[in-house]
Amino acid sequence: MRAGRTTAGRATLHSVAAAAGVSHQTVSNVLNAPDRVRPETRERVLRAVDALSYRPDESARSLVRRSTRLVSFNVGEDRPDRVSMLDDFARALARVGETHGYRLVLDVAGGTDDEQITSFADLTARRAVDGVVIPSTHVGDRRPAWLTEHGVPMVAFGRPWHAPDAQHSWVDVDGGHGLRLVAEHLLATGRRRLAYVGPPRDGGMEDDRLDGLLGGVAAAGVPGATVSTLEVADPSRLESLLPALLEEQRPDALVCRDDTYAFEARQVLSALRDPAAAGVAVTGVDDSRLARLARPGITSVAQPLDQVAALIWTSLVAQIEGRTTEPLRRLIRPALVERASSAPAGT
Amino acid sequence: MRAGRTTAGRATLHSVAAAAGVSHQTVSNVLNAPDRVRPETRERVLRAVDALSYRPDESARSLVRRSTRLVSFNVGEDRPDRVSMLDDFARALARVGETHGYRLVLDVAGGTDDEQITSFADLTARRAVDGVVIPSTHVGDRRPAWLTEHGVPMVAFGRPWHAPDAQHSWVDVDGGHGLRLVAEHLLATGRRRLAYVGPPRDGGMEDDRLDGLLGGVAAAGVPGATVSTLEVADPSRLESLLPALLEEQRPDALVCRDDTYAFEARQVLSALRDPAAAGVAVTGVDDSRLARLARPGITSVAQPLDQVAALIWTSLVAQIEGRTTEPLRRLIRPALVERASSAPAGT
Repeated sequence: MRAGRTTAGRATLHSVAAAAGVSHQTVSNVLNAPDRVRPETRERVLRAVDALSYRPDESARSLVRRSTRLVSFNVGEDRPDRVSMLDDFARALARVGETHGYRLVLDVAGGTDDEQITSFADLTARRAVDGVVIPSTHVGDRRPAWLTEHGVPMVAFGRPWHAPDAQHSWVDVDGGHGLRLVAEHLLATGRRRLAYVGPPRDGGMEDDRLDGLLGGVAAAGVPGATVSTLEVADPSRLESLLPALLEEQRPDALVCRDDTYAFEARQVLSALRDPAAAGVAVTGVDDSRLARLARPGITSVAQPLDQVAALIWTSLVAQIEGRTTEPLRRLIRPALVERASSAPAGT
Repeated sequence: MRAGRTTAGRATLHSVAAAAGVSHQTVSNVLNAPDRVRPETRERVLRAVDALSYRPDESARSLVRRSTRLVSFNVGEDRPDRVSMLDDFARALARVGETHGYRLVLDVAGGTDDEQITSFADLTARRAVDGVVIPSTHVGDRRPAWLTEHGVPMVAFGRPWHAPDAQHSWVDVDGGHGLRLVAEHLLATGRRRLAYVGPPRDGGMEDDRLDGLLGGVAAAGVPGATVSTLEVADPSRLESLLPALLEEQRPDALVCRDDTYAFEARQVLSALRDPAAAGVAVTGVDDSRLARLARPGITSVAQPLDQVAALIWTSLVAQIEGRTTEPLRRLIRPALVERASSAPAGT
C-alpha cells in the first residue's frame, strides 16, 4: 500500500519492514491478511508497528476493517445530443468487474474536478467503496493526484496529459494511432483532400487526434495529399458550416472527431442531394451505435473497451489487495472498422 | 493498530464517544453519514477511533446504520445494434437517488429471471444493498414475487403484466396512451393509411403499444382511416421488408414501435429516393438520442424518466426505512414530441 504522506519522522511501511527485518509486502500482509503470515513473523511485525507507532493511512485501515467489493465510477456529464461510448464502457467495466467479484457504483457528481473530489472524499470517509475508476482525463486533471495522495486505489481511463511524472495508474486508447489508421485508409482508397472536422485544439485529446491525422498523412508521403480543418465546437452547427467548407476546400473525405460529428456530417451531405457531396468519404471515432446504425454504415475507430476494462480491474484489484508494485501505464492501439461511408471512390 | 487480534478490552462505540467527548449518535454519524458532522468534530472522533483501535464489527455496524445506502439496478441485456432508453434511465435513477443519499450499484447478471434471482439472492445474503430496482418487466416475470417474498425493498419500472393481484410496487409509462397520442397527431396532420412497424405481439408491452394505436384510430372516428401492421422482429430487416409494404399498402405514415425502428425506417425511405416515400410520416417511441440527432428529427413519445425515478425512490426509501403502507402502483402518461418526420403532409 503506497501511503501518500511522507512527513519527516513519521513511520512508514518501509521503516516498519526494516525494523522487523521483513519485506514491506509482509508488513502489508500482516495488516491486511494476517492469516497469510506465520504467527512468529506476525508478532515481530506487530511489535515493530507498536515500537514505531506506525499508523497505516486511511485506505489501508479501511482494508483492515472491511472490503466493500465496490468500486465507484463517475458517469460523467449527460449530453443528450451526443452518443458517447461511456455507457458502453460502464457496461464493459461492470461485466469484467463481476468476474473479479466487484461491482460498480454509479457516481453522478458534477463535471468539475472539485465536485468529483468532494464526492471521493465522502466515499472514502464513509469507506463506501474500495477504489475509483476515472472514466476520462483532461489537461490539468487534479483528481488522480488527490486519490493517490489519499491512498485510494484508482485507475484512470485516460492518460495524464502533460504530466509525465504522474505516479498513478492509467490506461488509454491511442487516439492518435487511430487517426493515423484513418489517414492510411483514406489515402489508400484514393482520397487526397482530407478535411478534419472537430472541436478546437485543447492541448490534450483533441490535439492527439488531429496530430495523428496530420502525422499519418505526412508519413504516407502521398503527393498532393492535404489536410484542412473545420473547427466546430458543436456538431449540430455542421448544417450551417459544412456547405462553405465543401465549396471552398472541395474535400474528398471528412475525417470526424467522433461518430456524432460523422453522423451529422453524413446527414448534411445527404441532404444536399448533390452527387459530388454524396461521394465524400466520412469517418468517425468510437464505433458507436450511431456508426453501426447509419446507412451507409460509418467507418470508425473501435476502442477495445473489454481490454481496457480487463487491465483496469487487474491493476485495481492488485492495489486494493495491497500487492501492487508498479503503477499501470498502458496505451492501447485501437482498430479501424471499415464501413461503406469510406468505400473506395467510384464504388 | 492491532489487526487480526481480539483483546478483552475491545473498544466500543460508547468508549469512542466518551474519549471524544461526544454522543454515541455522533460517533455513529461520523462512521455512517460523515457529511452530517462538522469537520472538527469528525476529526476528533476519528482520532479517538484511531487511538482506541475501534473497529465496528459487521453486525453492530449494520445495526447502527441499518443501511448500505446502495440499491441494485440490473443494466439488462446489451444490444449493440439498438439505442435504448435504459442508459438514460440509469442516469436519471442515479441522479435522483443521490438526492436521497443513495447510490446505484450496477448488476450485470444475465437476462433470464433465474440468473437475476440468483444475483438478488447473493446480494441480499451479503446484505450488500438495501433494495432493488427492476428496469423492465415481462409477461410471467418471477422477479417481483421473489423479492417480495424475501422481504427485499423493490420497485419495478414496468407493470405486472396479467398479474392484477401483484402486491409489489411498480411504476410504468402508459405506452398505449403514447400510441394514442401518435394516432391523434397523425390523423390531425392528414394521414389516413397508418402502418404499425414493430415486433410480434407478446401479450404484454408490444400489445399495449399496438392496441393503443388501434384504439386511438378507432376512437377518432375519422372516415377512411386504416391501420396495417408489419411484423419485424429485428429493425435491420426493414431494408428488405419495407419496400413491399410501401408498394402494397401505400401507407402515408409508419408508426414505429420505438426510435430504433423509426430511425431505420427513415433511412430506408430516404435511400429509395422516391418522392412518395419521402412524404411518408415516421414516428418512434422513447425520444432517444437517435430521434433527436436524425435529420429530419423523428417525432417520438417521451417517457418522463425523472418523474419515474422520483416515484421509484420515494417508494423505495419508504420501504427501506420501514414506513411504507401501500405498494406503489402508478401508470404515468408520456408526452408526444413533434418533429419534422411527421410534419403536416405537403409542408
